[in-house]
Formats: sequence, C-alpha cells, structure tokens
Amino acid sequence: MTVNTGDADRIKGVVDGILQDYNQGRDIDKMSVFHQPDKEAVTSIVNKMIRIIYPGYYRDKLFKSYNMDSNLNVWIEDVIYNLSKQIALVLQYQNENDQSDCGCVTDEADLDEQALCISIKFCQQIPKIREYLDTDLEATLQGDPAALNKDEIILSYPGLLATTINRMAHELYLLNVPLIPRMMTEYAHSITGIDIHPAATIGKYFFIDHGTGIVVGSTTIIGENVKIYQGVTIGALSTSGGQSLRGVKRHPTIEDNVTIYSGASILGGETVIGHGSVIGSNAFITKSIPANARVTIKNQELVMKTSGDRGFEEPEDNNNGQDDTWFYVI
Amino acid sequence: MTVNTGDADRIKGVVDGILQDYNQGRDIDKMSVFHQPDKEAVTSIVNKMIRIIYPGYYRDKLFKSYNMDSNLNVWIEDVIYNLSKQIALVLQYQNENDQSDCGCVTDEADLDEQALCISIKFCQQIPKIREYLDTDLEATLQGDPAALNKDEIILSYPGLLATTINRMAHELYLLNVPLIPRMMTEYAHSITGIDIHPAATIGKYFFIDHGTGIVVGSTTIIGENVKIYQGVTIGALSTSGGQSLRGVKRHPTIEDNVTIYSGASILGGETVIGHGSVIGSNAFITKSIPANARVTIKNQELVMKTSGDRGFEEPEDNNNGQDDTWFYVI
Amino acid sequence: MTVNTGDADRIKGVVDGILQDYNQGRDIDKMSVFHQPDKEAVTSIVNKMIRIIYPGYYRDKLFKSYNMDSNLNVWIEDVIYNLSKQIALVLQYQNENDQSDCGCVTDEADLDEQALCISIKFCQQIPKIREYLDTDLEATLQGDPAALNKDEIILSYPGLLATTINRMAHELYLLNVPLIPRMMTEYAHSITGIDIHPAATIGKYFFIDHGTGIVVGSTTIIGENVKIYQGVTIGALSTSGGQSLRGVKRHPTIEDNVTIYSGASILGGETVIGHGSVIGSNAFITKSIPANARVTIKNQELVMKTSGDRGFEEPEDNNNGQDDTWFYVI
Repeated sequence: MTVNTGDADRIKGVVDGILQDYNQGRDIDKMSVFHQPDKEAVTSIVNKMIRIIYPGYYRDKLFKSYNMDSNLNVWIEDVIYNLSKQIALVLQYQNENDQSDCGCVTDEADLDEQALCISIKFCQQIPKIREYLDTDLEATLQGDPAALNKDEIILSYPGLLATTINRMAHELYLLNVPLIPRMMTEYAHSITGIDIHPAATIGKYFFIDHGTGIVVGSTTIIGENVKIYQGVTIGALSTSGGQSLRGVKRHPTIEDNVTIYSGASILGGETVIGHGSVIGSNAFITKSIPANARVTIKNQELVMKTSGDRGFEEPEDNNNGQDDTWFYVI
Repeated sequence: MTVNTGDADRIKGVVDGILQDYNQGRDIDKMSVFHQPDKEAVTSIVNKMIRIIYPGYYRDKLFKSYNMDSNLNVWIEDVIYNLSKQIALVLQYQNENDQSDCGCVTDEADLDEQALCISIKFCQQIPKIREYLDTDLEATLQGDPAALNKDEIILSYPGLLATTINRMAHELYLLNVPLIPRMMTEYAHSITGIDIHPAATIGKYFFIDHGTGIVVGSTTIIGENVKIYQGVTIGALSTSGGQSLRGVKRHPTIEDNVTIYSGASILGGETVIGHGSVIGSNAFITKSIPANARVTIKNQELVMKTSGDRGFEEPEDNNNGQDDTWFYVI
Repeated sequence: MTVNTGDADRIKGVVDGILQDYNQGRDIDKMSVFHQPDKEAVTSIVNKMIRIIYPGYYRDKLFKSYNMDSNLNVWIEDVIYNLSKQIALVLQYQNENDQSDCGCVTDEADLDEQALCISIKFCQQIPKIREYLDTDLEATLQGDPAALNKDEIILSYPGLLATTINRMAHELYLLNVPLIPRMMTEYAHSITGIDIHPAATIGKYFFIDHGTGIVVGSTTIIGENVKIYQGVTIGALSTSGGQSLRGVKRHPTIEDNVTIYSGASILGGETVIGHGSVIGSNAFITKSIPANARVTIKNQELVMKTSGDRGFEEPEDNNNGQDDTWFYVI
C-alpha cells in the first residue's frame, strides 16, 4: 500500500480532528484516569484464584504433589502482590473521586499498605469460599442427571465457573473494594452468559444449570439449596428512578430450597419466594409467594392450525381432513 | 505414543479420504477464498478502535499524556493501515463474486487505493462515533441505579461495549464494506451475548442493561433515548421467505424515549413503537403501539399449589392446611 | 510495595490456613486428578478441526493450494497426536474411576494404543461431519435473508460455529470418549451462548439463527431440516429426580422440517413435534404436537395504558384524550 501526499494529508486531518474532539471536556474525553484497575490484570487474578480454589484441577503440567506447600506459597504471594497493586489503584482512584464511601481508606499516605491489608483479608476468606463451592459442586451433581461426576462439573460447567467467580468477587465487595468485583463478575458474564452482581448474597448449595441469560441483581438475597435455570431474571420492577434508587433494596429475596425454572422472572425488592417453593418456567412474579408453593403459569392457551398444503410432506395424521380449522390445545 | 505401521497406514487412509472429500465441489470445499478478511485482524482493529475512542481508559501502561499527539498518530495510522488491508481483501473478494453490489468499486486496478480511501473516511467518522457514545454513557449512568460512575461503566459494562462495537461497524456498513462489519458485531456478540446487526440504525442515548440474549435485526430503526434489557428481540415476523426477503424492511421501528423491558419481543417491519412508550417484560408485540403507551402482559394467570409434604421444611405459612388445593394468583 | 514482617507472617498464616483447608478430604480437595484432559489442549484441537473442516477459510496466511496434501497430512497428524494424548488421559481417568462404562477399554496395558485407535476412528468421521455441515451451511443461507452468501456465514455466524463443534463432539461421544465431548461443547457455549449437549442427535440441514440462550438437552433427537432461533429450550420437564434420571430419555423428539421460533420451550422425553410443524415464539410445549401443525400462543392479552403526562413529548396520537383508560390489544 502506498500512501501518497494527498492521503497523508487526509490522515493528518483525521488525527487533528480526533485530537480536537478529545478536548471537548466530556466524560468520554477524560484523560486523567491514571488510577484505574487493569482489565487483563483482573482477569489474570481471577484465573489464579480458580487454580488455588481447585488445586487438583487447574494446575501447571509439571506440578508435583509433594511440593504443594511451595507451590501454594508462590500462588498466594502472586495473587496478593497483583491484587494489592490493583486495589491500590482503585483506592487512589476512589480517594480522588469520592473519599467518603470507603471506611477502609482515611488518608492517602498508606494506600499501598491498605491495599495489602485488604488483599490479605481477601485471601483469608479462601477457605470460606472453598467451603461454599464444595457445597455448590455437590448441589450440581445432585441436580443434573446429565452430569457424570464432579470432575466433569469442575472441568466444564459454566454454572459452577460463574458461581466460583461470583463468590470471590462478593468477598472483595464485602471488603469495600470498588470497581474490581464488578470487573470480575463481568468477566464471568462474558464467558458464561451469567450476570450475577457481586453485591448479591448467595447461600450454600447453589446450582445453576445451563445458565445463559441469567441475571441476578445487586440487592438480591438467595438462601441455601436454591436452583436456577437458564434465562431466569431476579431483577428490579422498574429502574425508571435511575440513580435515585441507589442503595434501595430493589431485588427479591429467595428463601432456602427454592427451584426457579428457565425463563422465569422474579421482580421487586419486597418480593419474597418462600422456602421450598418451585417457580415454573416463564412465570412472571412480582409479588411474594408463600413457602412450599408450586407456581406454574396457567396452562398457556396455544392456537394450533393443521393443514396439508404447507409444501412439506403430506401429513399422515392431518386431523381427518379438518385442515384450516383452528383449535386450542393446552 | 508409538505409531506402528498399521496405524500409519490407517492415518494415511484418513488423509486420503479427506483429500478425496475436498474434491466434491460443494461450497464447503471451496478453496479459492483467498480474498477473505482475517478474523484475528478484524478483532485486533476493533480493540485498537476502542482504545482510540476511550483514550483515557484503554491504553498502554507507559502512556504519558504529554505525547498524546504522537500516540494518536501511531494508533490512527495503525488502524488505517490494517483496516485498508482487510478492506482491500473484501473488495477483491466482492469483485470476484458480485461486482454489482458496491458503488465504491468500479474496476480492479486500484482496489488498494479504494480501500485506503474508505479507511480514511471511516476514521473521519470517529468524532461522530464518540459523540454518540458519550450520550450512551450518560444514558447508562442515568438508567442503572447499580452503576457507581461512568468509569465503572466504561471498564465493565457489556452493553456499552456492544454499542461501541456496533456504532463502528455501522459506519463501516454505511461505507458499503461487506463482511467486515458483521465480523465486528459477531465479535461483540461472542463476548457480550448481544447480537445487533451492523445495518441497524440506532439513535443517541442508547442504553442496554445486562444485555445477554438481545437480538436486533438488520432493518431495525431505533430512535433516541431508547432503553432495552436482556433477552429482548427486535426481529422479523417470519423468515420463511428466506433469501427472497433480502432488502425488505422486516424489523420494527422504535421511536424516541421508548423502554423495552426484559424478554419482550417486537416483531415485523411495519411495527412501530410510538415515542415515549414502555413495553413490559415478556410482551409479544406484532402490531404498532401508539405514542406514550404503557403496554404490559395482562396479569399472567399462575397456578399455585401448596403442600406440606414436599420433603423440605414443614411450611410455616401453609395456607391453614389447605394443602393440595389449587388456586390462582395474579 | 513493601511487605513488613507482620504482613509476611499474615501471608504465611493465609497459606497455612489454605493448606490445612486442602486436607479436609472433600471432593473439592481431590489432588489425585492426574489423568484429566487439559482445557487448552481440547480448545486447540477444536480449532484445528475447524481448519480441517473448512480448508478454504481458516488457514495459515502462507498457505498455497498446490501443497494441500502435505498441509492436510500435517494437520491430521497433529490432531491425531494431540487428541490421542487427551483421550489416553481420560481413558486412564475412567479406568481409575468407573471401569464399567466404556466398552472400548478392557485393561490398562494399552490405553495409548486404544486412544490412538479412537482418534483415528474419529478422524475417519471427518467426511461425514463435513457432509452434514455442508447441508447446515445451505440451510443457513436459505433461512436467513440477512445472509449475503455462504462465505459470510462460515466467517461470522455463531450458529454454524456451534453446530460445527457440536457435530465433532457428537462423533467423539459416539466413540464413548468421556469428558472431552462436553468440554468441546462448553467451549462452543462459551463463545456462542448456544448450549447443545454432545449426546443430542441432530439431522442434516440444521439451522440456528442468532442462537444466544439455546439449550438442547442430552437425550434430544432432532430430524432433518429443523430451524431453531435464539432462546429456545429443548429440555427436560423436571430434573427433581436428579442422578436417578441418568440415561432416561428426558428430552423431546423433533421430527423433520420443524421450525421453532425464539423463546419457545419444548419439554419432556415423550414429547414429539410432528414433521412439518411450526412452533411460535414463546410457546411452552409439554405434550406432543401432530405433524404439519402451526402452534402459536393464543393472542397474548396485553394491557395498554396511554397518558399524556409522562414527562416525555406531548403525544401526537394519544387516542383522542382517552388518557388513563386501559384497553386490551391483541
């Protein structure tokens, strides 16, 4: 490709135009965002954490079990070092933007030390995270007849992967770290189609099957032994209030032992699904449901038309010639 | 692994079988597709464009603000150089296949120059793309109570990411570039679950929340200040006409200030959603809706059964012993 | 970042805590999972297979058509070598865990030879896989008015990509290889949002449009010339039986020439959708449908409220001042 003088001038014109465009002072033009976490660094921390959480599954090829101690030391130091760097960035960022939000940071002097402190506190939660995930693993095996064994689940199930990332993001969220928890759960969202806000509270024995399209909002509370299927929304009734709703409980409470089948929507901050209830596919729930209820959509009325002239094979069971009649089936 | 003579013969047999299979002259056997764009090159261009669009967010670690001019020069030249190469490939491809479609190319002689010209025109649209995206960013902050600030949105929201990629793909589409715009939007689809055809026209202040499962068809027209949620389809009524429908407006028009909640389907090329209307979750719309309407599905009839013997906890609120009765709730 | 003595002690405490946590003997603590397939290796095999299947599309930049024979030799040997290694791992794994399942493996002595044998058998199926995919490509072009040509489909359509990966995973599944087929389809799920179990049987001329959110269960049988759209579930009626349902046909049979529009759910192992039928968007089907039927949800009752005071523009067509009245539209 040869670039002649005319083209070179046009390219210079493009560059000048964009440089001018950068100087309009809009939010999109913000240049001073030095203290922001790095997306790749956050993704890398997530993947190292997964290796620590499931030490037998995700590991280096040359791993030898007799030096697990040294290995773990290296892994944990790696996570603490890199996570501290990212947390220090967001704490500086937060200090510059809205100092009031985070109880953890009081002055700028020792943000690095604060970040290290938070990272260590986070890693102290790893046994708790693993305790929860072991129950999720059990619930997945029990809930899915297609699962051969727990190894298959750890190696390939997106539901467990999303839950794993969500449980670590939630612990970081509880330590008042801004931005990074959401970046973690959006990484999970990107690879699984499952969008669970890091602020959502989720009990033990949580089972997600298939998972694509699931949305769980930030103020959701989910009890123990809850199963949810693809396309389920646990969301807000309306967000037309926008930023004025920040902090308000806008999402439902799901009690213990609830199953929510595919495509169901459960909406509203005062909606409680009582323990032991089963919510059928595609149900649209905006009010509380008592305990031990079984809720399904009323037999959906379907319209069925049969005809023998659709250009495909001649029907063998075409309703005795009653083509072009309509009838209802449940 | 040792491969003995018998296995070597079998492997040779496999290779011979596949080579023979390649010679059947079917479309899948096509070997002459030399002039096709490269998937990785297109992905790389998209990511460089994102860096140019949000210069404060996605950038090299060593970036220093005082040499922004030089940096931008390098980035823009990089995009123009690589995009020109890919466009030249698709123009050659198009010339070989169906010369009639593209007004831009009239003879084969100077496809490279044509490609460079188109790339420069594309980059001239960057300020316009950024102007639109700044409004999308504002709409996202206003629309989502869970958003802490615009930085979080740029760093982690898949809706804005999909919109960003779609707006650049759309500009390339308007310059009559084949294949590449769709490859860009399918890259967005892959990482966000949001499938917006590059031909769709979308106004300012566009807000997508959660996003997984959204489908927006090629002939859709969307006005300003429109919000759509996860699982929304803006699609065709039927595609049984197949290729004969190419070019026909098959997808709806959504006027300004419309909100479409999760799971709603709006179908058909003559369907218009009037300005200011709100379409509720799961509504299935195939006819036009007037302005300022609020459309929801009629209270869905749910069947609820409660019982105390489901093997879970004894219900505390089991409807006074009315187990095994059925009743309707809204 | 400086780590003082106190912090070093705390980090040591974290490591000790996690090491102790690893010794609880739970499933999550399993360390002896040496014989497990490697996720990246499986992904890499999938991408090499895609290159073999579509030799004109996915290939090295320096590829020259006159040495196709040598190239194919290299590719096939590469796939056989790497796939054998992964299969040997899962066969050893299977031998250790549940020897009874796989007819292919009888003793541990020659697992490598067994793995090689299975890999060769798998590659012998490539012409059959390509024969099916050529029909899928044709069905996609015929089914989608937005498709410009088959090249665009191969280069960018997630539906064809998911089907491609599913067809290879299915052949491996038929050879009784554990774990790896599911890892392949979950890779497809991750990049397309389409979740088809490798055990599902799918006929020729299969067309998936958009695809995000599609779930096809393991015991599903799909005939020829079937089209499915985004968000369709072909699933089980209930999985509350958990592992006791393993092996039972829990998912529907879809006969030839059936179209299933977006968001429809078809559930249950005894449910048969008769040939030539069309299932409308969002239909929820749990019983068999005869041949050549056209099933849609009964005109959904929508509640529509119009008002002129919603803070947006004054409505131009506000139903003659009948604000705040409710009426039904189909």
